[in-house]
Amino acid sequence: MTKKIAVLPGDGIGPEIMAEAVKVLQALDLPLTLEWADVGGKAYENSGHPLPPATLKLAQEADAVLFGAVGDWKYDKLERALRPEQAILGLRKALGLFANFRPAICYEQLTHASSLKPELVAGLDILIIRELTGDIYFGQPRGRRTAVDGHFPGAEEAFDTMRYSRPEIERIAHVAFQAARKRNKKVTSVDKANVLETFQFWKDVVTEVHKDYPDVELDHMYVDNAAMQLVKAPKKFDVVVTGNMFGDILSDEAAMLTGSIGMLPSASLDVNNKGLYEPSHGSAPDIAGKGIANPLATILSAAMMLKFSLNLPYAAARIEAAVQSVLAQGLRTADIWSEGTSKVSTVEMGDAVVKAI
Amino acid sequence: MTKKIAVLPGDGIGPEIMAEAVKVLQALDLPLTLEWADVGGKAYENSGHPLPPATLKLAQEADAVLFGAVGDWKYDKLERALRPEQAILGLRKALGLFANFRPAICYEQLTHASSLKPELVAGLDILIIRELTGDIYFGQPRGRRTAVDGHFPGAEEAFDTMRYSRPEIERIAHVAFQAARKRNKKVTSVDKANVLETFQFWKDVVTEVHKDYPDVELDHMYVDNAAMQLVKAPKKFDVVVTGNMFGDILSDEAAMLTGSIGMLPSASLDVNNKGLYEPSHGSAPDIAGKGIANPLATILSAAMMLKFSLNLPYAAARIEAAVQSVLAQGLRTADIWSEGTSKVSTVEMGDAVVKAI
Ligand SMILES: CC(C)[C@H](C(=O)O)[C@@H](O)C(=O)O
Ligand SMILES: CC(C)[C@H](C(=O)O)[C@@H](O)C(=O)O
Repeated sequence: MTKKIAVLPGDGIGPEIMAEAVKVLQALDLPLTLEWADVGGKAYENSGHPLPPATLKLAQEADAVLFGAVGDWKYDKLERALRPEQAILGLRKALGLFANFRPAICYEQLTHASSLKPELVAGLDILIIRELTGDIYFGQPRGRRTAVDGHFPGAEEAFDTMRYSRPEIERIAHVAFQAARKRNKKVTSVDKANVLETFQFWKDVVTEVHKDYPDVELDHMYVDNAAMQLVKAPKKFDVVVTGNMFGDILSDEAAMLTGSIGMLPSASLDVNNKGLYEPSHGSAPDIAGKGIANPLATILSAAMMLKFSLNLPYAAARIEAAVQSVLAQGLRTADIWSEGTSKVSTVEMGDAVVKAI
Repeated sequence: MTKKIAVLPGDGIGPEIMAEAVKVLQALDLPLTLEWADVGGKAYENSGHPLPPATLKLAQEADAVLFGAVGDWKYDKLERALRPEQAILGLRKALGLFANFRPAICYEQLTHASSLKPELVAGLDILIIRELTGDIYFGQPRGRRTAVDGHFPGAEEAFDTMRYSRPEIERIAHVAFQAARKRNKKVTSVDKANVLETFQFWKDVVTEVHKDYPDVELDHMYVDNAAMQLVKAPKKFDVVVTGNMFGDILSDEAAMLTGSIGMLPSASLDVNNKGLYEPSHGSAPDIAGKGIANPLATILSAAMMLKFSLNLPYAAARIEAAVQSVLAQGLRTADIWSEGTSKVSTVEMGDAVVKAI
């Protein structure tokens, strides 16, 4: 049966990297129908909203969503509800994409690109699982008001609500333990239980869910310590599970540690493994249109899509092998280039992956 | 006039490192009276509370507080209100210590100790200014309840409140701009304005306060990006100012990047520059009692105390010069030791600093 993919290129380098991922998907000759729609700043310009109804409808009907990147400084002055990032928050919420998978992998050939000393990152392969539809991202109430207590009663203040319910924590904990079973059977749950009620509860519930997974090792770490241990000894981690806010920070830190954020895909899944797939990097407006962006994170996101949402693991493996092969050939976009390798453009990189398939 | 210092050694390595800092202070022959009190797990054991009334009273009466470290795994099972960390939160709140200064400095002789490649950290000198009495750390309401809305109405949930009022943001922004004036005149304000009402307000207020400091450059950065840029190019920062929660994470990440967290002091000040001074590292219960902990962060915290709260900058400079001198002599505790330097104990390091004074 033909599956429908919503293709949302977005802003900045989004369209360029998406074109290459689409080329790679098409080269595999799979029973897929691709349908394009605007999202982010582009959508705002064309139809007044970063996530227009037609785009949302397409994403809801599709079997999976392939997402480029959104955002540009030129939209900074818009009111928050109309800014490009609202599209991604809106899609997560509307599609119930509660489980975000962000691998931080250091590719053998790219070890030198890391800020860290090679021995600390060589062979690094950690998986950050971030809860994506709860926490302070979506908690109500929030807004501005006059403070009635605190340090300055009577002053203007702004506030947000952090919250997690038991089933929200349970389902992401199950996802993490199950993922760890397919890897090195170790989960680190990151919290701030020493300060926050929400994360004391998080810790309690994760500990309870762990009883179903006696074969998986669980440890708990405070978020400040996790930010340190990622720098000090990233290879000590296997699966890291945490809330939306801490996951935002730690997954970006971990991705940057690898030195090759231009290589890292991500998946955001709902309860049925329907998902949205996007590169871990952003829209990089500074290099948009120059043809130099690295399309591999988006290409690898397409591979994750085939594996997680479309049940086409062999096709996914063909993409992954092709990416390994272009790296082995010494082809590099500017972000991962080093002395002795060949610098290629976005399109050349996409072409090389297609050729390797 | 004689000044009174509250000396709170605390748990783990706290007493060992504090003994050395006290030795150094005494060697300077200053008009200081030192008074000791229990804090943290030790205080809980001796009097049933991590911050007993007598300790709080001493801290309130003193001109400055010198703090070691608190915490040990053996207290993990206690209810939150009795755990050692509550002492530090309680002191911050009771003393109104809203401005936390955490320098992240890479000492020339210790560049190799960093996880990062030497060229990325050599000469690193950034100052993280963290707001310390607001944000989600102290915001009410917080607790557990039955969810009335969200993804699982009717489920048990836990929640916390993030909040900042205008005067709270204004005062920490002034602190940051004034600190930047004495340095490289550049402030990076870290927020998550794209998601949180609290941090859109933060960004707005910092931007307003900036009008009083046209000679200082201000830029804004999202917290996830800041976590990445610290890894990628830490030297691009000068002063970083942020809220309590983000500051907790980023200041620890930055400290660890230097590779010598055992060297980094910190200061937490009130509106009158009365302050609490403590090392940036923790209580390290795993090495407590072994005599191998690095006392230099605590010794340098004592120097910060002389400078910021006691108006004794020359005495502070003598300590700092003595620390530089012991490093130049090649003396190293285990945490910063490397081939070709001399490994010394906690006490030997303290003695060497005293000798160098
Ligand atoms: C754009 C922003 C709202 C988003 C987030 O904070 O979740 C981004 O940083 C991410 O991690 O996908
Ligand atoms: C112990 C803990 C409550 C504290 C904090 O989160 O502020 C610590 O991590 C710190 O940074 O001083």
